[in-house]
Amino acid sequence: MAEIQVRTAGGAYPVHVGHGLYEEELARDLMRIRPARVVLVSHPSIFELHGGRLSAALDAGKGGPGAAFTFLFPEGEGNKDLRTLEEGYLALLKSGITREDILLAFGGGVVGDLAGFLASTYMRGIRYLQLPTTLMSMVDSGIGGKVGVDMPGAKNAVGSFYQPLAVYCDIATLITLPGRELRSGLAEVAKYGFLYDAGLLRILEGWPGGLPGPGDDLAGVVAGCAGHKARVVSADERDLSGERALLNYGHTFGHALESACGYGELRHGEAVAVGMMMAARLAELTGFARRDLSEQHRRVLMPLLGDGSLHIDPDQDRVLADMQTDKKKGERLRFVLLEEMQAPRLIEEIPERFVKSAVEDTLEMLRRAGLCN
Amino acid sequence: MAEIQVRTAGGAYPVHVGHGLYEEELARDLMRIRPARVVLVSHPSIFELHGGRLSAALDAGKGGPGAAFTFLFPEGEGNKDLRTLEEGYLALLKSGITREDILLAFGGGVVGDLAGFLASTYMRGIRYLQLPTTLMSMVDSGIGGKVGVDMPGAKNAVGSFYQPLAVYCDIATLITLPGRELRSGLAEVAKYGFLYDAGLLRILEGWPGGLPGPGDDLAGVVAGCAGHKARVVSADERDLSGERALLNYGHTFGHALESACGYGELRHGEAVAVGMMMAARLAELTGFARRDLSEQHRRVLMPLLGDGSLHIDPDQDRVLADMQTDKKKGERLRFVLLEEMQAPRLIEEIPERFVKSAVEDTLEMLRRAGLCN
Repeated sequence: MAEIQVRTAGGAYPVHVGHGLYEEELARDLMRIRPARVVLVSHPSIFELHGGRLSAALDAGKGGPGAAFTFLFPEGEGNKDLRTLEEGYLALLKSGITREDILLAFGGGVVGDLAGFLASTYMRGIRYLQLPTTLMSMVDSGIGGKVGVDMPGAKNAVGSFYQPLAVYCDIATLITLPGRELRSGLAEVAKYGFLYDAGLLRILEGWPGGLPGPGDDLAGVVAGCAGHKARVVSADERDLSGERALLNYGHTFGHALESACGYGELRHGEAVAVGMMMAARLAELTGFARRDLSEQHRRVLMPLLGDGSLHIDPDQDRVLADMQTDKKKGERLRFVLLEEMQAPRLIEEIPERFVKSAVEDTLEMLRRAGLCN
Repeated sequence: MAEIQVRTAGGAYPVHVGHGLYEEELARDLMRIRPARVVLVSHPSIFELHGGRLSAALDAGKGGPGAAFTFLFPEGEGNKDLRTLEEGYLALLKSGITREDILLAFGGGVVGDLAGFLASTYMRGIRYLQLPTTLMSMVDSGIGGKVGVDMPGAKNAVGSFYQPLAVYCDIATLITLPGRELRSGLAEVAKYGFLYDAGLLRILEGWPGGLPGPGDDLAGVVAGCAGHKARVVSADERDLSGERALLNYGHTFGHALESACGYGELRHGEAVAVGMMMAARLAELTGFARRDLSEQHRRVLMPLLGDGSLHIDPDQDRVLADMQTDKKKGERLRFVLLEEMQAPRLIEEIPERFVKSAVEDTLEMLRRAGLCN
């Protein structure tokens, strides 16, 4: 069991990482918090897999009837929208939920973002806990209080910074995660490795086929990433100093790629993995990198794309155009690049021809590996 | 010109009160803030009356084209909802508004609440200024950062605490305010008088027919109220210690009365005026008040109801039932009562028969005055 502290102006709170946290830490904390009622926000699929265990733990914690109330909504980034949010408000109102109660966000990134925003705005803010159930949300979106919903064509366009009372990364929930989802999450783990932590990269490289085996310490890897995320968020909660922006390594390319492939084709982590390879290539092409980065990136990241199910067909011009669209909206086109491993910098004003070549070279490499048309 | 400071965890900022603030303080501040663009959120009616003057001031301030972009929505509490909010998000996105820009909430309470919430949640929060144009919003809702929208049957059920960079109470905008709206705002002024400030009550009592004449110092009265509001909000931004709850004097009765009469029949300030008379009567009936309060309340408040246009027909049982509905939702039924003038206390658990009598006695008094069926 690891406990990591996040310290922000919006609140200081622990991130717990381990096995069986619901029965122990969560149950104990709810005994202490003594909310009038508990509202569970989740997807039906997650609730079916792990809801029984959680409800039993809540029973123990409240000395009462478990979750008084459950709001379930369908899976998919497409449901992280104002419609679902409105349904959530209406459901909470109908159940008479007040600021004496507590909300539990129980699921992956979509649940955490939507439920956290629901908590931040219902009755001007009620308390909530993050219970991430995917590797991606445990190491990234579940920590740091960025919550919100998408607008058509604009991810996370509506939201706020609203910190939970605590985060519980119960590794037991990862057992049911499909291999592709786990690999996608490991791409975010690799991101922390490239940015800050050579040890994480050595662990990933040691796992055959990119996935941890029964004896491997996945909890330790999650705790390591949570530590990096907690440190960055504590230093730059509101994304103002540039520190938190470094966590977007691979994301400028990745978002454009997700959009060009059509949402749903690529997992977010897969897009970020390809994006980081493009960023490494860009660092080489511009002479910013002091040594060969692409090879080091490929060694860690290609196994995470490689179970055979991935085959993308992005329109190269559209990838470039999508990045320009972001720029036209008034956002500056910024890249996180590595000078060398674990030496990231935020860079603006890169000539477009280098960006184009980085995209071309990386897609060509994927083509040769049979992952891309 | 008066300048009052608000100091909260969510930000410290000035409230300016005076004549011609747009041309001077606002223009000067925008020169200093240098936003990339200015978004004006308002009602068509307010924009028609005062938009020209404001736009000219923005021109001077930005050294640019005035408001780059205007989002107007129809008047009425019924439009302070998720639909209008969504239209607002879409309009901001379409215009490419980013966190470099600034939003101006230009209107009464409905505009301030909706525009402030838009600012608090668009792109996880952009900067905004409050430019209240009604007496009610200058002395109350425009100060303190409570922003949000209504849900069906639940006022302000969705919202947040989000402080503006500054508030500009330009008294010149009150010239176009109808007499009934001005009187409604003066009921909130009287509230500060009963709670904290005998001097305010003496000023109100000195105005013939309840309204200020050409030589009367309305700016001084607004500044006095803004000072009280700023002090309370600075002490209890998030409504936790009970201090901010005192500002609900007359509101428990008032909200039930608004609901029982049908929204729109009574101005908010009128409902609060009647509510304060009920609260004064309740304090007497329970023996909580040390002297006769009702007579003192009537002397100040009756002129504010009395231009002849008000005639209500509330179902007395429904007023009582509406208060019980609030209670059933898990909120405790609390009353702000005066021990004597300027000595408020927050009281729970008052026997229902006293509440019933306070409602009955006050409605009977209004009946005798010809204001109620």
